[in-house]
Amino acid sequence: MRAAVARKGKFFVEELPTPVPAAGEVLVKVRACGICGSDLHYVKHIQHIIDRTRKLGAPTDALERGVEEGVVLGHEFVCEVEEFGSGTQRTLRRGDRVCSMPFLMRGGTPSLIGASRDPPGAYAQYMVLTESLLLPVDDSIPDEAAAFVEPMGIAVHAVNKSGVAADDAAVVVGCGPIGLALIAVLRARGVRRIIASDLSPKRRALAETMGADLVVNGRDESVVARAVERAPGAPLVLFENTGAPGMLGRLFLEAPQNTRVVIVGIAPDEESFLPVLSVMREHVFIFVIYYTPEEFAEALDLVRRGAIDWRLLVTGKVGLDGVSQAFADLADPERHAKILIDPWA
Amino acid sequence: MRAAVARKGKFFVEELPTPVPAAGEVLVKVRACGICGSDLHYVKHIQHIIDRTRKLGAPTDALERGVEEGVVLGHEFVCEVEEFGSGTQRTLRRGDRVCSMPFLMRGGTPSLIGASRDPPGAYAQYMVLTESLLLPVDDSIPDEAAAFVEPMGIAVHAVNKSGVAADDAAVVVGCGPIGLALIAVLRARGVRRIIASDLSPKRRALAETMGADLVVNGRDESVVARAVERAPGAPLVLFENTGAPGMLGRLFLEAPQNTRVVIVGIAPDEESFLPVLSVMREHVFIFVIYYTPEEFAEALDLVRRGAIDWRLLVTGKVGLDGVSQAFADLADPERHAKILIDPWA
Repeated sequence: MRAAVARKGKFFVEELPTPVPAAGEVLVKVRACGICGSDLHYVKHIQHIIDRTRKLGAPTDALERGVEEGVVLGHEFVCEVEEFGSGTQRTLRRGDRVCSMPFLMRGGTPSLIGASRDPPGAYAQYMVLTESLLLPVDDSIPDEAAAFVEPMGIAVHAVNKSGVAADDAAVVVGCGPIGLALIAVLRARGVRRIIASDLSPKRRALAETMGADLVVNGRDESVVARAVERAPGAPLVLFENTGAPGMLGRLFLEAPQNTRVVIVGIAPDEESFLPVLSVMREHVFIFVIYYTPEEFAEALDLVRRGAIDWRLLVTGKVGLDGVSQAFADLADPERHAKILIDPWA
Repeated sequence: MRAAVARKGKFFVEELPTPVPAAGEVLVKVRACGICGSDLHYVKHIQHIIDRTRKLGAPTDALERGVEEGVVLGHEFVCEVEEFGSGTQRTLRRGDRVCSMPFLMRGGTPSLIGASRDPPGAYAQYMVLTESLLLPVDDSIPDEAAAFVEPMGIAVHAVNKSGVAADDAAVVVGCGPIGLALIAVLRARGVRRIIASDLSPKRRALAETMGADLVVNGRDESVVARAVERAPGAPLVLFENTGAPGMLGRLFLEAPQNTRVVIVGIAPDEESFLPVLSVMREHVFIFVIYYTPEEFAEALDLVRRGAIDWRLLVTGKVGLDGVSQAFADLADPERHAKILIDPWA
């Protein structure tokens, strides 16, 4: 099969062996896969990630093997069932469209899909998935929408962990695909005051269309100050999605009494805070990643109900040969939000 | 009246005007007041506190006035009603013993008691309190026990905010009076696995007596590692009470998946964390201070039911003239846990 292999900061379209489903697994044909910000981050910063991991005393073997062998990225996918492995239930049929949390359950522990060459992620024509995690995608959901289930799952999880209430003021810092998905989930949950910030005019416009009721340019003004002004006395729930160095420190300093800060973006190095300030103000910092199976299913349901408009967000589609250019193009937030890969194009 | 005034790092026993209760307030006679770790911190580090506050751009006038005029500390008190101000309900009677959250409600906003000379804190013979905050202390509770209601309130609040469940493993880092109160509250809530650490043998012994089921010397071994060993797979809830520089950073690095860190102690300067690690492990950092009226009442009820044994904790009693020496003595954790002040002795 054909796959786009990321190796030492570049992409190579290569012929790889089609993976073979193990017991309880299913071979699926990839129909579409979104390019995630974390994929961009991996390709650009893998050496820094390895150095940092080593510094923490954690094993770096798998990461270093990835650098040598190359990695088939891709964890925001919609597929169709191609072939069942042994010991499968087979309640779905060949050709059924499915999505799944990007984990393979092998030996009882989940391993992330889209972080190795074998098994491959969805920047490839085929992949293997764990049958028990498959969710059927019904005909009302186009592939383009189904590719948003994974980022919507991240947003559902972050919103759940935040404990945000309808009367709270939600602040979304950074309006890339995750920030926009957060706005969609917050609206679906009935949160009435959503204040968003981004440096990009295009993304601010998207945030507004998606349902933010106040959108600011974080370079010119403080989104926290504007949120306090907009919703005086309401508890603030900040979602930090940029991962920009120093951003957390700034938000912590500004955050008023009882603010919850939900950390979704991943800043590359250490961040700091002032305990006396956060204690006096009873801050809560909530770090989030991934989702539960229930949250992933809820994300699929939200996509089915049209909570996120993929037509606004999908700004490009490429085949495997176009992945390299797509990664370059995504650097410009004025031009792109989400690019989908069709490995058969 | 006589009061111990803290001024520029020293104590002076002075004659001050007896405070006059405003509308809705009551003049009370102080029967006993505990010396709190934050009182020690104030006397030793006030200049650093002012510098840091100024650096944050917050007003320092009140703090600087405190340095000039002196401050009457004391917020862990039990008193008796002496005289009612205007507009009071007077459901209590003269001579009734009371405790209260250390706040005066004036103009609708709470101001902390024990942080100014006027109104004074409880290192004095008299003080004024807001009538609506008074809780009657019944005859079954000796003064020595009642003086623990305030630190127990801190512990009740921290435990509530932590959301700790009976099956979680609770880790208490630092077994001064607050850490010991935390152990008492955790036990009262049915938390079965309580792992505590302190550098002092005396305090470790107290933690054990108070009900910790594993006590370690944090200098020799990792309390987090021992807790994981003791309660494999149980969610960890860490209570950091030392405020020691760098302690939070160390705990964050060690804390496994899904750990909640409750920050009770106040480290003096910036602390740092590694976002990638805390995101991958879905940490939650919960900063706490003070209590609600309901939590303060619960603390009184816990004290009434004997949840904390004051006989173990009260290691000294002094009059106002002894405050200065008591502050010096409290530096030695082998000798002292809690010293009470009787301003009439």
